[in-house]
Amino acid sequence: MNKKPLVIADPFPQTLERIFTAETRKAMDEIAEIVSSDKPQMQPDQFDELLPEAVAIIGQTPMPTERIERAKKLRVIFNVEGNFYQNIDYAACFKRNIRVLNCGAVYARPVAEMALAMAIDLSRGITWEHMRFTAGTERYVADGNSESKLLSGSTVGMIGFGMLGRSLRPLLAPFRCKVKAYDPWLPESVLIEHDCIPAGLDDLLSSCEYIFILAGVTDENKGFLRKREFDLIRPGSHVLLMSRAAVVDFEEFVSQVSRGRFKAATDVFPSEPFPVSHPIRKIDNIILSPHRAGGIPQAFFAIGDMVLDDFKLLMRGLAPVRMQAAQPETVMRFSSKPAHS
Amino acid sequence: MNKKPLVIADPFPQTLERIFTAETRKAMDEIAEIVSSDKPQMQPDQFDELLPEAVAIIGQTPMPTERIERAKKLRVIFNVEGNFYQNIDYAACFKRNIRVLNCGAVYARPVAEMALAMAIDLSRGITWEHMRFTAGTERYVADGNSESKLLSGSTVGMIGFGMLGRSLRPLLAPFRCKVKAYDPWLPESVLIEHDCIPAGLDDLLSSCEYIFILAGVTDENKGFLRKREFDLIRPGSHVLLMSRAAVVDFEEFVSQVSRGRFKAATDVFPSEPFPVSHPIRKIDNIILSPHRAGGIPQAFFAIGDMVLDDFKLLMRGLAPVRMQAAQPETVMRFSSKPAHS
Amino acid sequence: MNKKPLVIADPFPQTLERIFTAETRKAMDEIAEIVSSDKPQMQPDQFDELLPEAVAIIGQTPMPTERIERAKKLRVIFNVEGNFYQNIDYAACFKRNIRVLNCGAVYARPVAEMALAMAIDLSRGITWEHMRFTAGTERYVADGNSESKLLSGSTVGMIGFGMLGRSLRPLLAPFRCKVKAYDPWLPESVLIEHDCIPAGLDDLLSSCEYIFILAGVTDENKGFLRKREFDLIRPGSHVLLMSRAAVVDFEEFVSQVSRGRFKAATDVFPSEPFPVSHPIRKIDNIILSPHRAGGIPQAFFAIGDMVLDDFKLLMRGLAPVRMQAAQPETVMRFSSKPAHS
Amino acid sequence: MNKKPLVIADPFPQTLERIFTAETRKAMDEIAEIVSSDKPQMQPDQFDELLPEAVAIIGQTPMPTERIERAKKLRVIFNVEGNFYQNIDYAACFKRNIRVLNCGAVYARPVAEMALAMAIDLSRGITWEHMRFTAGTERYVADGNSESKLLSGSTVGMIGFGMLGRSLRPLLAPFRCKVKAYDPWLPESVLIEHDCIPAGLDDLLSSCEYIFILAGVTDENKGFLRKREFDLIRPGSHVLLMSRAAVVDFEEFVSQVSRGRFKAATDVFPSEPFPVSHPIRKIDNIILSPHRAGGIPQAFFAIGDMVLDDFKLLMRGLAPVRMQAAQPETVMRFSSKPAHS
Repeated sequence: MNKKPLVIADPFPQTLERIFTAETRKAMDEIAEIVSSDKPQMQPDQFDELLPEAVAIIGQTPMPTERIERAKKLRVIFNVEGNFYQNIDYAACFKRNIRVLNCGAVYARPVAEMALAMAIDLSRGITWEHMRFTAGTERYVADGNSESKLLSGSTVGMIGFGMLGRSLRPLLAPFRCKVKAYDPWLPESVLIEHDCIPAGLDDLLSSCEYIFILAGVTDENKGFLRKREFDLIRPGSHVLLMSRAAVVDFEEFVSQVSRGRFKAATDVFPSEPFPVSHPIRKIDNIILSPHRAGGIPQAFFAIGDMVLDDFKLLMRGLAPVRMQAAQPETVMRFSSKPAHS
Repeated sequence: MNKKPLVIADPFPQTLERIFTAETRKAMDEIAEIVSSDKPQMQPDQFDELLPEAVAIIGQTPMPTERIERAKKLRVIFNVEGNFYQNIDYAACFKRNIRVLNCGAVYARPVAEMALAMAIDLSRGITWEHMRFTAGTERYVADGNSESKLLSGSTVGMIGFGMLGRSLRPLLAPFRCKVKAYDPWLPESVLIEHDCIPAGLDDLLSSCEYIFILAGVTDENKGFLRKREFDLIRPGSHVLLMSRAAVVDFEEFVSQVSRGRFKAATDVFPSEPFPVSHPIRKIDNIILSPHRAGGIPQAFFAIGDMVLDDFKLLMRGLAPVRMQAAQPETVMRFSSKPAHS
Repeated sequence: MNKKPLVIADPFPQTLERIFTAETRKAMDEIAEIVSSDKPQMQPDQFDELLPEAVAIIGQTPMPTERIERAKKLRVIFNVEGNFYQNIDYAACFKRNIRVLNCGAVYARPVAEMALAMAIDLSRGITWEHMRFTAGTERYVADGNSESKLLSGSTVGMIGFGMLGRSLRPLLAPFRCKVKAYDPWLPESVLIEHDCIPAGLDDLLSSCEYIFILAGVTDENKGFLRKREFDLIRPGSHVLLMSRAAVVDFEEFVSQVSRGRFKAATDVFPSEPFPVSHPIRKIDNIILSPHRAGGIPQAFFAIGDMVLDDFKLLMRGLAPVRMQAAQPETVMRFSSKPAHS
Repeated sequence: MNKKPLVIADPFPQTLERIFTAETRKAMDEIAEIVSSDKPQMQPDQFDELLPEAVAIIGQTPMPTERIERAKKLRVIFNVEGNFYQNIDYAACFKRNIRVLNCGAVYARPVAEMALAMAIDLSRGITWEHMRFTAGTERYVADGNSESKLLSGSTVGMIGFGMLGRSLRPLLAPFRCKVKAYDPWLPESVLIEHDCIPAGLDDLLSSCEYIFILAGVTDENKGFLRKREFDLIRPGSHVLLMSRAAVVDFEEFVSQVSRGRFKAATDVFPSEPFPVSHPIRKIDNIILSPHRAGGIPQAFFAIGDMVLDDFKLLMRGLAPVRMQAAQPETVMRFSSKPAHS
């Protein structure tokens, strides 16, 4: 019998138990020798000892040039957290056709579902009226409905059209919204192909009743939504911050919501946990979600499924199709902090 | 110039201002002489005086046999509230081909949007975690997510497949759920045509992770969901009561939710306003909505649009197509109380 | 045991064997006593003798006033051919709440599929290039493709938006066409609800690349598409006549196609069989289909399914939901000749 | 002013005029210096002289190791024909992060539309009955319809689920077919994500009423559909060969069709032009299309659009998103002959 290929598992802050179902783990074990540590993180000694024989790494372990060089058999690095970090010598990987793959796609569907629900919640006041009901001050039928609006037929804007946007767009299809999208990394044809209307940022902000902020962070776009941009938003609009707090001027965002300029929901915060004393906890017109839109059990198990599928393809000499591959042109640009750690 | 046909407007508890936009009202005025009262309800004297010349009535005014007889020119009665009441001699109307039309369809889309959002809210804890956040006890990322599930790919049940079900079904399409439907008034072929799996009530209750109660009330189905039925629901399911409180044994429903058998949301209550002292206001696992899923401004204005469209068709000798026409076989069966008054 | 209700079956030109599968027939027999003739058409004597006890008639037998009067127990007449004929005293039926139901809907799906295929055939030259291939004169790859166009993204017009249009519209959805619809019997809101752009006839004709003629015939619209209208069609368009030949000036239609003004397909002809000597058989740019778009075995069996479903509902005191019910406002207007006889 | 980057255009057998609209060409010229030959193919001398300065090549010019080495500034090679050829040192390209991009995706939509139309044509006999009509032997209404079937609700199989399958799948959505897919290069999860049922080849062949052969050719799968496989197909099925003739035993395919085992359509042939004397031209039950499903004017112009979009992205330091990038794992496996030359 042939020896199974060696796979190093060092998934911290993930755990193997969280990303592999029993069934998926069994399927992996049938085709690979998975070696992990009994600690949350593998000791560098153990890692370095295993490296020369490893065909795959599951985890975000630093992979500087010298480690890449020593990893003679390495074919793939599975990032099981969700962002490309700058702790890998990507250039060396590209030269050797070592795939660096990212599981970020697993969070897109959970985030999209939650974003849709929160958008309708904002326009219908579900959360806020429930709070009144528990306090005995609920308003029946039309009495509390003067601001309630349908999502159906409305104009929706998406800022950023990556994996989150692509997961959210189809959920909006039966609502027959006019969907504008702004994404400076994409040609208009891609937006059109996904049934969006390409839009400039200012046009989007000033014309949309629902605005989903779905852009990832790069060195270049930090805080690109600030006072000038928020001032463009129409009164009574609904703004949902679903990707990274760093893309907005957060205090300005809070300030405009607290003044009633628009209704808002946010799943992300500049620091987490967010200070208990911050005034955001007391303002009306906002729904607060402590960074929980993506990290649900089904998403974590989807990581294991993806790893299994792409590992099998690579072992058969085929290209991976499920995880997002690091691209030579762009992988150095990402600067987001670990999101799901 | 020909005299315009006379239309009596007695829309109480609606108002003309709430159902007609300025534009729709203008379009009506161009083709009809609308006479209304300056009081919320028209005095019987005034109504009876106008009746012999009226071609249409907008409202839920009692129309016993003798009034039908005196209404020699009457062609249509527009119910602008939403349910067929037993204050009309329907048999006399059918004999004369007088249409009795109902605006209930306008509430279906708003209810469907809200039902979808509340279903996701139940499974993701949006409302409850927001309340924790305002209290400073929020749990970040995976910490509060152990019960969070995707709607995508789940098994959904619809109890009743009338207008509400038909509005909700397409909203679920992009989630690729397996949707079971139970409706004793419909042949299976209709459910299949709407991409549902026909199911018996017990099968539906015991197999679905999301259960939408969408059935209207008739004399025959009052309280048809009671202990035996609730006992069939799987632990951890999500139950949404969106149509009429009278179809369930409400106290049993509350009792099962309070024991944590399943998560629930309800938009309807046995009495409204509901007693401030009722324990439902204190239990976890429920989202409370004071009968506000349907009655939003856009729904009310949609009534006026429908009245205008169908009135125009009838005046041209065509059949109405937008409002729901009373059917000789069934109109006497409805017994629901006014819902949106 | 109760006697089963009596159903008279006189379906000519249909046959019971063609409309009922063995299974459907069995289900009918379990709930009804079906009496038919051993001849293609029932003798009037037999029919009249059965009439007083019959609760339902399956067929297009003449039902003048005196027969309606004698049919004391009659609840429903199932037309199993496809058009409402003027051989029934409809007014008497409405007075008695006797339903007259029409199976025309069964042909809509087969016609829609064929219309879609023929539209693509016209723009891609499938049929014509196959004929060249059998003659050994085929042109490879781009050589015969200079006029080939995508349906995707094109502008489509539907003249008439009844059952055919409603069956065709969803088939076009993945092609992301701009779909204009003209139907003087419908308010714009209904067209919009079906994702069509309401259009005037002239605008539709002069702006659409694909034009589907789907209108039924009434006394009022005979030959409403004639020289003036065909002259509006853009050169190179694709015109498909799928409903009734009587709505067009057929010779003008043929003349414009033969001059190469547009490409065309027709499933209907002013007389059938159409004269063998007619020049239409020799012109390019046309696809000829001898009235076979609707009458396929699955459509005929669907009639039986509908009869069974609606009969069961009526016997339970519920309204029919599958077949199209004659409407008092419009049933007298139809004048189409038997189409599927 | 900066010098514009140099682009070598050597698109043979394509032409720049066929792939660039005036507008797209203008947009390219604004950002690049495009140098082409006045002959259909560029002379090697001219090509080699330009090479050291070129950032991009539009065409299928041989690029052996030494040319890659001399092309110091090269960033991208745009294949504008449609298949990866073995005339490029791909390994050298991967080492340098030179993108090799393929336009094959442009043919997918035209092929999908034609495949759908031909499938319905096969089951409804559009082409064949038109031929009878021109011969004066047409059969009206049900007479020629005994074998006519709906696509709606049928079981469909796709052999190969690459770009063609992904374009065809959504077109089938409104038909509510059960779609099985077989693709040994893909994990089941990808097929499921596209709403297909993963199937083994034998199961697919023996259970599907419509079978679309959409697989590309590799060294490994030549002729993988032969007697054993065709024998599994159910009598009366519809088989459409849309990708490459080399994946089937063509003579066996023809033989089974000529014996009436199934109905078939083919767009591809083992040699083109196909011999005039071949018996395929005389058999019933087949629709013949001379390799024209993909190469329509809109597809060619789409190549230019893609080149423009991806060139702009690469010049901005972003990854290409529209054309298919050669993958290190698989690019050496393709062996298909030029298809659109």
